[in-house]
Amino acid sequence: AILICCCCALLLLILTPRACQAGNILVLPAEGSHWINMDILLEALHSRGHNITIVCSSKSWYIKENTSYYNTIRVEVERGIDELLTTKILSKVVEFERGSLSWMNFLHTSVGMFSTFIEIHQLLCDFLSALLDDQDLMMNLKESKFDLLLTDPCWGVGTILAKYLNLPLVYNVRWLIVQEAHLTISPSPISYIPITGSGNTDKMTFFQRVNNMLLYLVPQIQNYLAVKLVYQKICDKYLGLGKDFNQLMLDADIWLMRVDFVFEYPRPTMPNVVYIGGFQCKPAKPLPQHLEEFVESSGEHGVIIMSLGTFVSELPADITNKIAEAFAKLPQKVIWRHKGDRPATLGNNTLLVDWMPQNDLLGHPKIKLFVAHGGTNGVQEAMYHGVPVVGLPVFFDQYDNLLRLKDRGAAKIITFTTVDKDNNFLEAVQEVLNEPSYRINIQRLSRLHRDQPIKPMDNANFWIEFVMRHGGAAHLRTESYRLPWYSYHSVDVILFLLTAALLILFILVRLVLSCFRLCLKRKMKSD
Amino acid sequence: AILICCCCALLLLILTPRACQAGNILVLPAEGSHWINMDILLEALHSRGHNITIVCSSKSWYIKENTSYYNTIRVEVERGIDELLTTKILSKVVEFERGSLSWMNFLHTSVGMFSTFIEIHQLLCDFLSALLDDQDLMMNLKESKFDLLLTDPCWGVGTILAKYLNLPLVYNVRWLIVQEAHLTISPSPISYIPITGSGNTDKMTFFQRVNNMLLYLVPQIQNYLAVKLVYQKICDKYLGLGKDFNQLMLDADIWLMRVDFVFEYPRPTMPNVVYIGGFQCKPAKPLPQHLEEFVESSGEHGVIIMSLGTFVSELPADITNKIAEAFAKLPQKVIWRHKGDRPATLGNNTLLVDWMPQNDLLGHPKIKLFVAHGGTNGVQEAMYHGVPVVGLPVFFDQYDNLLRLKDRGAAKIITFTTVDKDNNFLEAVQEVLNEPSYRINIQRLSRLHRDQPIKPMDNANFWIEFVMRHGGAAHLRTESYRLPWYSYHSVDVILFLLTAALLILFILVRLVLSCFRLCLKRKMKSD
Repeated sequence: AILICCCCALLLLILTPRACQAGNILVLPAEGSHWINMDILLEALHSRGHNITIVCSSKSWYIKENTSYYNTIRVEVERGIDELLTTKILSKVVEFERGSLSWMNFLHTSVGMFSTFIEIHQLLCDFLSALLDDQDLMMNLKESKFDLLLTDPCWGVGTILAKYLNLPLVYNVRWLIVQEAHLTISPSPISYIPITGSGNTDKMTFFQRVNNMLLYLVPQIQNYLAVKLVYQKICDKYLGLGKDFNQLMLDADIWLMRVDFVFEYPRPTMPNVVYIGGFQCKPAKPLPQHLEEFVESSGEHGVIIMSLGTFVSELPADITNKIAEAFAKLPQKVIWRHKGDRPATLGNNTLLVDWMPQNDLLGHPKIKLFVAHGGTNGVQEAMYHGVPVVGLPVFFDQYDNLLRLKDRGAAKIITFTTVDKDNNFLEAVQEVLNEPSYRINIQRLSRLHRDQPIKPMDNANFWIEFVMRHGGAAHLRTESYRLPWYSYHSVDVILFLLTAALLILFILVRLVLSCFRLCLKRKMKSD
Repeated sequence: AILICCCCALLLLILTPRACQAGNILVLPAEGSHWINMDILLEALHSRGHNITIVCSSKSWYIKENTSYYNTIRVEVERGIDELLTTKILSKVVEFERGSLSWMNFLHTSVGMFSTFIEIHQLLCDFLSALLDDQDLMMNLKESKFDLLLTDPCWGVGTILAKYLNLPLVYNVRWLIVQEAHLTISPSPISYIPITGSGNTDKMTFFQRVNNMLLYLVPQIQNYLAVKLVYQKICDKYLGLGKDFNQLMLDADIWLMRVDFVFEYPRPTMPNVVYIGGFQCKPAKPLPQHLEEFVESSGEHGVIIMSLGTFVSELPADITNKIAEAFAKLPQKVIWRHKGDRPATLGNNTLLVDWMPQNDLLGHPKIKLFVAHGGTNGVQEAMYHGVPVVGLPVFFDQYDNLLRLKDRGAAKIITFTTVDKDNNFLEAVQEVLNEPSYRINIQRLSRLHRDQPIKPMDNANFWIEFVMRHGGAAHLRTESYRLPWYSYHSVDVILFLLTAALLILFILVRLVLSCFRLCLKRKMKSD
C-alpha cells in the first residue's frame, strides 16, 4: 500500500503543471467586466504560488479590499470613473440602440459621449499622477522588486507605470484604448478584417469595405487628436520628453489576447500575441438544489436561460413585457436574470433570479438556449459548452461578438429596434430551438475550441512565468514600432528608387537623343 | 505487485501523448536537405500509428525504397533534377562566393543559374503530369482515402496534387518556391524584415533598406514572369481554368514553419502558421567508442567539430590546407567531416571522418566550438545544445542563418573570399573559443529555445492530427487571398473615398461662392 501511495504521489507530481519560482506581480487592472476577467487570471496565478499586488483608485467600484489572494494599494482620488460611465454613457445607450433619438440629439449625444470618454481618460491620468507623485509609495513599489506588471491596456495608465518602474510588461488585452488591439500591434488589412462596430464579417461587399474603412479611420483620428494628448502629457512629465505614447503602448512583452480563432476571424498576428480566448471557461459544477429541481422539472423540453450581463439589469418596461409574454408561450422552462419590477406578462414557466451560476447552467445538458447580450464572457461560455444563442446586443462590441456566432450559423440576433415589434423575439427563440443546425454549428465550434495543444489558462500562466524567468520576452518583439511611419511603410525607400529609376531613364533618353543628333549631323555633313 | 503494475500502466497511459485514430497520409516531399527534415517528421508520424505513402519520381536520389515506416509510389520520368542541381548550380557556387568570376561571367552565370531553376521547375511539372496522367494510379490514390497531403512547398507540385485530389493540405515549409514563406502568407513590412540573401538584420540603415527592397522585388518579378507560368500551365490543364497558381499556394490548412523566434527575427505571422523550428533536435546519445575516446583525450581544452553539410564535402585545396594549418596550431582536438584528399598541412590533433553523429557530438560537454556552413539543421542543433559557431557559409540561406547567430553574439562568420587570407580563420576560431560572451549568448538562446509550452515536434504532430480530426483547419485561414490585389490593399476604397471627399469639397466651395456672389449682387443693388 505504501508503494502504491508513493506511485500515486509520483503520478501527481508529474501531472502537476510545471510551477515557476514564486513571482511577485504588480497589477493595474481596468474596471467593469474587464476586472472580472483579470480576477480569474489573478486567482489562477495565486494558486500557482505568486504574490499579487493591485494598484487601484480609492473610488474603484469593483475591486474588493485585500482578499486571500491579492493585496491592494489604493490611491486617493477625488472622483471615480464609475459615475461618468454609468450616468453619462450607459444611460444613453438604450435610447441609441432603439433609434429613439432625433438626428440633432444623436449628434449631440455622440459628441457628449466622446467628450465623456476623454474625461474618463483624464480622470485616469489624474489617478496615475497622484500615484507617481506619492514619493513614499513609489519608493515602496521600487523596493518591492516586482517581476512584471500586468495590466489591461484599454486604459493607458498601466503601461506608463511599467515604464516608470522599468518593469517587464504583460497585457491582458482585447482593446487598446480606442480600438481592437490587433489593429495596433499587427498589420491589419482593412479589406478583410471587420472593424468592431461595423457589423461586417470577413467577407465584405465594396460598400461594406467603405464603411469598414471609415469606422477604422474615425477612432484613429480621435486618438491622434484627443486621447493620445491626454496621456502624452503624463508621459512627457514623468518619463521625460521624446517618448511617444503610442509607441510606448506597443512595447509590451506579451499580449494575452482574450480571443481565439474559433471566435475571431483569422487575421495577421504577432509572435508575442498569445491567444487565451475562453480561459475563463471551465467544466460545469453541480447546480444549487432549487435550480437543479427547477431545471429537471422542464422534462424533455429543456430550459432557456437569459442574462444581459453586469451593466444592464433593467430594460424599458415595454421590452420586458414583450419578452416575458414570449417566454410564457413556450413549453420550455426559463431562468431569467432580471432586477427590475416583475413584468405583468410573466408566465408560470419563468423563474426570475438576481444572479445565476451562468457557467454551471450552460454546462447542464437540459439547457437548450441562451438569450444573451453578447458580452465576451457569455459568448465564450456558450461556445465552450455548445449552447446556441439568441442575442440581444446592448452596446460596445456586443453586436459584433454575437455576429461571430451568427455568421457560423450558431446564433440569431435581434436588435433593440425590433425586439418589441410583432412576434420577433418569440419567433427567433423558436427558430433557434427547433432548427437543429444552430445546435450542430455551436457544437462544432465547441469541439474546435476545446481541441488545442495547451489549455488557454495554462498558456496564460506559461507566458507570464516565461516573462518572470527571462526578465521579459524581447526576442518576440519586433523592431516595427521604433520606425517612423514613412520608414515603416518604406515610403522613403520607394520614393528614392522611383527617383533613381527616373534619373537613369532621363539620362538614357538624353544619351540616345544626343547620339541620334550626332549621327544626323554627320549624315548631313557627309551628304 | 499487481496493483503497482496496474498503477504504472495507468501512469504510462496518462503520460503517453494523446494519439489520434491511425491516419492515412500522402506525402510529396522535396529532395536534398529538405528531405532530411521531412524524413524525421515522417518517422515521428509513423511511430504514432499513421500510415504514410510517399509519391516521388523514379529518379529521386534521396528517398529510399519502401522502408519500415513508409511506402513509396515511384513515377517514371526521363530526367531527374539532381544532375541539374549538382552540375549546373552547386559547381558554380564556390567560384561565385570567392568572387573569382569576371563581371561578364558573373552575369552569364547568374542568368544561367536562373534558367536552370526554371528548368528544374519544368522537370517537376513533367513529373506531376506523368503522375496525373496515370489513370490507374490516380484511381488508386483516390480510393486510398487519404486524410491529408503533406508537402514541402519549395516545389509547387504537392499543392496542385492536393487540390486535384481535394485533400486537406499541410506544409512542412520554410521556402515557398522563390522566397521565404512568410513573405507570401503574412503581411511583411520590408522596412524591418530582412530578405534572405541581403545580409541584413531587423535593424537597417536607409541604404540597407533600399538593398532589402530590391532583393524583395527581384524574386517577385522573376516569379510573375517565369516560375509562375510554368506551374500555371499545369493548373489550367488539370484543375480547370480560373485557378490562380499563386493563390492556390496560399490555400493550405496548416503551415509547419521550420523556424522559431529565437532563431528568426520577430515578424507578423498568421493563425495557421505553426512554428516547429528545432523539431529535429533531441538530447545527445552516447558516442561510438572510438569517438568517445578521441573526445575524452582532449583534456581541458576540449574539441572543435567541423562539417559543411550534405552538399559540400570537397573544398578547393588551398582553402582546405589553410584550414588544416590553422587547426594544427590549436591546443584543442578537432573532428572534421572531410571527403577529399588528406590536406598536406593536417596536424596530429585533427581527425578526418566521412560522417559524424553531429547531434550527439554537439550535445557532448567537451565540444567547445562548431565550424559550420550554416544549414538550418546545423544552426538549430548548435542553438539547441548551446555550442558557439564559426560560420563558413557556402550558398542559399546559409549566410543569413549564421547572421542570426552572429547578430545575437553567438557566432562569427568568415566568407570564402577571406578564409584563406592571413590568419583569418585561425583568429576567428581563437576569438570564439577564448571570448566567453559567445558561449554565454548561445546558451541564452538555448534556454529560450527550450522554454516552450509544447515541444516543436509535439506541436507538429498535434496540428497534423488536428487536420485529420477536423478535415482541415478552414477556420484558421484568412479570406485575404480570395481578394484581388487592389481590394486587398483597399486601393479601390481609398480612391472612392478621396473622390467623394473632393466632390463634397467642390460642391461646398461652389455653394459658398454662389452665396457670396448673391450677397454681393444684393449689396450692390441696395447700394
